[in-house]
Amino acid sequence: MIRAGIVGGTGYTGVELLRILALHPEVEVAVVTSRADAGMRVDALYPSLRGVIDVVFSAPDVDVLAGCDVVFFATPNGTAMLMAKALLERKVKVIDLSADFRLKDAKEWGVWYGMAHACPELLAEAVYGLPEVNREKIKKTRLLACPGCYPTSVQLGFLPLLEKGLVDTKHLIADVKSGVSGAGRKAELAMLMSETGESFKAYSVSGHRHLPEITQGLEAAAGDSVNLTFVPHLTPMVRGIHATLYAQFSHRKVSLDALQGLYEQRYANELFVDVLPSGSHPDTRNVRGSNMCQIAIHQPQGGDTVVILSVIDNLVKGAAGQAIQNMNLMFGLPEDRGLKILALYP
Amino acid sequence: MIRAGIVGGTGYTGVELLRILALHPEVEVAVVTSRADAGMRVDALYPSLRGVIDVVFSAPDVDVLAGCDVVFFATPNGTAMLMAKALLERKVKVIDLSADFRLKDAKEWGVWYGMAHACPELLAEAVYGLPEVNREKIKKTRLLACPGCYPTSVQLGFLPLLEKGLVDTKHLIADVKSGVSGAGRKAELAMLMSETGESFKAYSVSGHRHLPEITQGLEAAAGDSVNLTFVPHLTPMVRGIHATLYAQFSHRKVSLDALQGLYEQRYANELFVDVLPSGSHPDTRNVRGSNMCQIAIHQPQGGDTVVILSVIDNLVKGAAGQAIQNMNLMFGLPEDRGLKILALYP
Amino acid sequence: MIRAGIVGGTGYTGVELLRILALHPEVEVAVVTSRADAGMRVDALYPSLRGVIDVVFSAPDVDVLAGCDVVFFATPNGTAMLMAKALLERKVKVIDLSADFRLKDAKEWGVWYGMAHACPELLAEAVYGLPEVNREKIKKTRLLACPGCYPTSVQLGFLPLLEKGLVDTKHLIADVKSGVSGAGRKAELAMLMSETGESFKAYSVSGHRHLPEITQGLEAAAGDSVNLTFVPHLTPMVRGIHATLYAQFSHRKVSLDALQGLYEQRYANELFVDVLPSGSHPDTRNVRGSNMCQIAIHQPQGGDTVVILSVIDNLVKGAAGQAIQNMNLMFGLPEDRGLKILALYP
Amino acid sequence: MIRAGIVGGTGYTGVELLRILALHPEVEVAVVTSRADAGMRVDALYPSLRGVIDVVFSAPDVDVLAGCDVVFFATPNGTAMLMAKALLERKVKVIDLSADFRLKDAKEWGVWYGMAHACPELLAEAVYGLPEVNREKIKKTRLLACPGCYPTSVQLGFLPLLEKGLVDTKHLIADVKSGVSGAGRKAELAMLMSETGESFKAYSVSGHRHLPEITQGLEAAAGDSVNLTFVPHLTPMVRGIHATLYAQFSHRKVSLDALQGLYEQRYANELFVDVLPSGSHPDTRNVRGSNMCQIAIHQPQGGDTVVILSVIDNLVKGAAGQAIQNMNLMFGLPEDRGLKILALYP
Repeated sequence: MIRAGIVGGTGYTGVELLRILALHPEVEVAVVTSRADAGMRVDALYPSLRGVIDVVFSAPDVDVLAGCDVVFFATPNGTAMLMAKALLERKVKVIDLSADFRLKDAKEWGVWYGMAHACPELLAEAVYGLPEVNREKIKKTRLLACPGCYPTSVQLGFLPLLEKGLVDTKHLIADVKSGVSGAGRKAELAMLMSETGESFKAYSVSGHRHLPEITQGLEAAAGDSVNLTFVPHLTPMVRGIHATLYAQFSHRKVSLDALQGLYEQRYANELFVDVLPSGSHPDTRNVRGSNMCQIAIHQPQGGDTVVILSVIDNLVKGAAGQAIQNMNLMFGLPEDRGLKILALYP
Repeated sequence: MIRAGIVGGTGYTGVELLRILALHPEVEVAVVTSRADAGMRVDALYPSLRGVIDVVFSAPDVDVLAGCDVVFFATPNGTAMLMAKALLERKVKVIDLSADFRLKDAKEWGVWYGMAHACPELLAEAVYGLPEVNREKIKKTRLLACPGCYPTSVQLGFLPLLEKGLVDTKHLIADVKSGVSGAGRKAELAMLMSETGESFKAYSVSGHRHLPEITQGLEAAAGDSVNLTFVPHLTPMVRGIHATLYAQFSHRKVSLDALQGLYEQRYANELFVDVLPSGSHPDTRNVRGSNMCQIAIHQPQGGDTVVILSVIDNLVKGAAGQAIQNMNLMFGLPEDRGLKILALYP
Repeated sequence: MIRAGIVGGTGYTGVELLRILALHPEVEVAVVTSRADAGMRVDALYPSLRGVIDVVFSAPDVDVLAGCDVVFFATPNGTAMLMAKALLERKVKVIDLSADFRLKDAKEWGVWYGMAHACPELLAEAVYGLPEVNREKIKKTRLLACPGCYPTSVQLGFLPLLEKGLVDTKHLIADVKSGVSGAGRKAELAMLMSETGESFKAYSVSGHRHLPEITQGLEAAAGDSVNLTFVPHLTPMVRGIHATLYAQFSHRKVSLDALQGLYEQRYANELFVDVLPSGSHPDTRNVRGSNMCQIAIHQPQGGDTVVILSVIDNLVKGAAGQAIQNMNLMFGLPEDRGLKILALYP
Repeated sequence: MIRAGIVGGTGYTGVELLRILALHPEVEVAVVTSRADAGMRVDALYPSLRGVIDVVFSAPDVDVLAGCDVVFFATPNGTAMLMAKALLERKVKVIDLSADFRLKDAKEWGVWYGMAHACPELLAEAVYGLPEVNREKIKKTRLLACPGCYPTSVQLGFLPLLEKGLVDTKHLIADVKSGVSGAGRKAELAMLMSETGESFKAYSVSGHRHLPEITQGLEAAAGDSVNLTFVPHLTPMVRGIHATLYAQFSHRKVSLDALQGLYEQRYANELFVDVLPSGSHPDTRNVRGSNMCQIAIHQPQGGDTVVILSVIDNLVKGAAGQAIQNMNLMFGLPEDRGLKILALYP
């Protein structure tokens, strides 16, 4: 059994890790930390876990965490970078669900996250945990940077086009809509149901922190610089991300059939990326609670603009599920172990 | 492997059966019928099932269904009673999720369901599938009447009080709130999101079909006649039932501690009934997608009115999950086989 | 023109006062206070008011407020009682939407609100602003205690029964469901959309602050002591309260027709209480944004339990609308001046 | 008083016309037709209108409608074109909220709406009722084609850019999100709350009927052909449209300040278009129930892509409110008569 620790177990990604790990046949959840709730039973805070998690929140302590085989950081940005090194030195694998190790450039990280990076020396070693791109590296790493929710949906949608050099990389557009759980479990006025229910809005149009992360990934795929307009929106539901992606053919038009074939081939062996039949409109409900990304390809009026629709559950493929998919790879387990979870419809 | 058939696979209880059975280690879904969608792949209608269900909808046919070990009816009322006999004669076990075999009195059934019962001779044999009451009978039956969603939440909440004769059976009140999926997958004006979203209302206050079913169960528990005021409400969410139950002590007050103890003891060995700690307020989200019923007991101001709060997911413990719990019992499997599903929070 | 001030203009009742007063033909909104947002334009915080409110938030100041004819307190409990006296001395009428002046018994107020009442000498003078009960007193008062949202819906529903002495006052039940805006505009974890969306729960079953207020009103109507079991619930929508009220006939059954007639007669001259036709189920959407209370009467199975359904918009008839209805009375205006607002359906 | 008739009074645009007209000081609602509900009181179907609308639904009859000064068609596409001519001949002004008279090209209309146009001879005369573009023509017309909801939000957002020739008209993108009431009051499976609640999806990506209408309007503004990629989405709320518009500068970049100034100037005298301060993110809740369009302009990272955010209430500025704004113009009334309605927040 893999002994797992979770640092920051009270947020939505933390409790989602618990939901999945509690039934994972190869994992024992040994430690769950929460400074604020130390001493409280985990299932007292989360009654949905009664009967399956017999752990008490503890204050984060490297010595205790060092008894784990793997530690997940489900913490706000800026925490994992303070503890990762000590854990790695104690032979603990680290999977960070925050943004601390996602960017390769410490300076740019500092600009977007408003603080100096505390551990830049590990950035080169950290592997960006998008299995559909970095599977072999993931298998060998001890430090995994789990992608953000928006970046997962956008990259999986754009990758085949960019890898083949089919579209103009200077005019990519990602219009993305997220459920409110993406904002986390924080007492914020703006996230009250009275504020977000029955309403829709864009936010951070001038620049969202996930932009450099997405761009870094798209540029690696394209082998070229990329110019992306990324507009995130808040939609009145709890879970789910729907990315609507727009790209223009760079040289010549490619037929919709060829595009469909390209996507199907690119993801043929991927367990968690599902290219829908031509003409489909993926619905976030069909991946709610599951680790799937469902994708559809459109070419309105047969024109020179491709429209890609890509949906995930922001807390699963966009966070906890992908983290566990990465853990499976890092420990040599089948990639879908513990992740055979079907979406909750309706 | 148990070969299972589902008649009426396009409704919400049908697709919920599929969600659970698709991952059940002892079951193979062999037949899924739908007159309207015959010839269509199941996962074309339900993309959430892509990759796990490789079946095409077929028109209902007794000869085909006779090849199954068990057939679930997830049909509108009035269908199972036409086919059950033929299947039983072919040695197929029948689990009916509709109301056809829930009432023992064919005449009363006719009054509430607006048609004559087509198969009254099987009513006596049919076992009412509330495992917390009828477990031993369920194990031996070949014809199982799966309880309604409202009746499950109300009976599990009231049972301990009635079995012990603590409350006045002539003045029971069940104020119950249901998510909209309880109305099924039917094109009805009243169930449009524009009609039900952001709004709350009671309905069928003068008399709802689940009333005689609940009363039948409560009277069996009380060993006495019961007078229940049952008011169902529609709440703007998809899944979940919250029953708020009111009863008055019949002879003398019982302390809240004693009540808490009574409930904990009554359900101590039940895998799917969870009595929350004293003072709790169960939240439907904590059972969403799971087969659990969570219950809390209150005694406002220490007075002579007991308030029981009981929550379930109407499609799981209130329908498909309970049906599979019953199937497990009928086939000698562990009661929770295939049902270790945690609620989706948030 | 009546010069109006609003103390605490940043909460939901404050902005709802502004929505209605901005178009009230006899009112000029002169002062809106907010300690936190002093200096900011009101319509910068509330873009829905752009073009109709040309006021900047100011810190609360008695001298400034003294320039008003009426001051509304849309503040947390405990604020109005500190300022009311000074304003009354300056000849300003005070309408308090908080709970400070609702209870006649200062001691009981202290028990439920967790602090000593700072101004008990005004409690006797304060008029409880339920126009359907206290219209004549309201016209003459200078200090108005605006009823709570739950109390408004429950009292209007029970009053006719209690005034006529038809039901057992020792076993009244009010099962009430509220939208989340009732919790106010405060950054609280429990009120995030991720916590309250797609979920339903009861809360404060052991005792909610509105209980003594409701009981006080019901006892005045009944001329007798009253024992009420009051269970509030949170329903996943923004606006609306649905009260489901249960009472048992005390002496003899009254026919549903007679009950219907009683309610229609009791509220025949009320502009904001609408008794629906027999058999109706009021829907909160039909009063959303309006000052109406819609009521329906049921007698399930012709038994001895009466079920009253009563709906209001918690922010209008349950707060700001009722406050303005009271203001109209206090200033000799037609009761519905500025309040001809139709519900937003769908 | 203007005598108004409404043909098709049972849909959402019909009842929204009634909500606004009931309080319009210059209008008397004389006739409301509904074939299906003829003989029923309007307020029996819509309890939100109790007390303000004293009309019974009647079957549509030209002779009866001829007694009106104006007739609104809130009917499915294909109805108004059958009756408009007869009414115009009887000197009745016609305001059509359906799509029958929106396109100038009868052939193209036939392609998109799947039937031959029954009255092509009136297409040239019909005025497209976007007051911000056609005010003077609207004042003089007797046949008004009220714009669709998507087209209103998209055109108002793009107009200033196109009129000034600032952007590449060959690569316009409109990513638009609508609440579910846009689908109308029809019993459709896909619009059940169980299907649309807690979920988000795109639809009709290959081509939506509003595309030619939008293109026609944009081309008129640009004086050039336009190539628009239009992707509509369904968002889980009842009311509201949020258009996110993308355009690339055609010649040289324009500064954000200049763009902001351009929009403010363009709409300076418009009562129902409100350009928000620079940096704003309009929220659909801030126009819910009102006739306003709120717009914000962004230029992410100062690049060469402009992002315009434009929000309306699909049933008000996107349908009934705009129809009444047009009626006011057609009858020489102040443009905002009866339309001073503030948005319902929260």
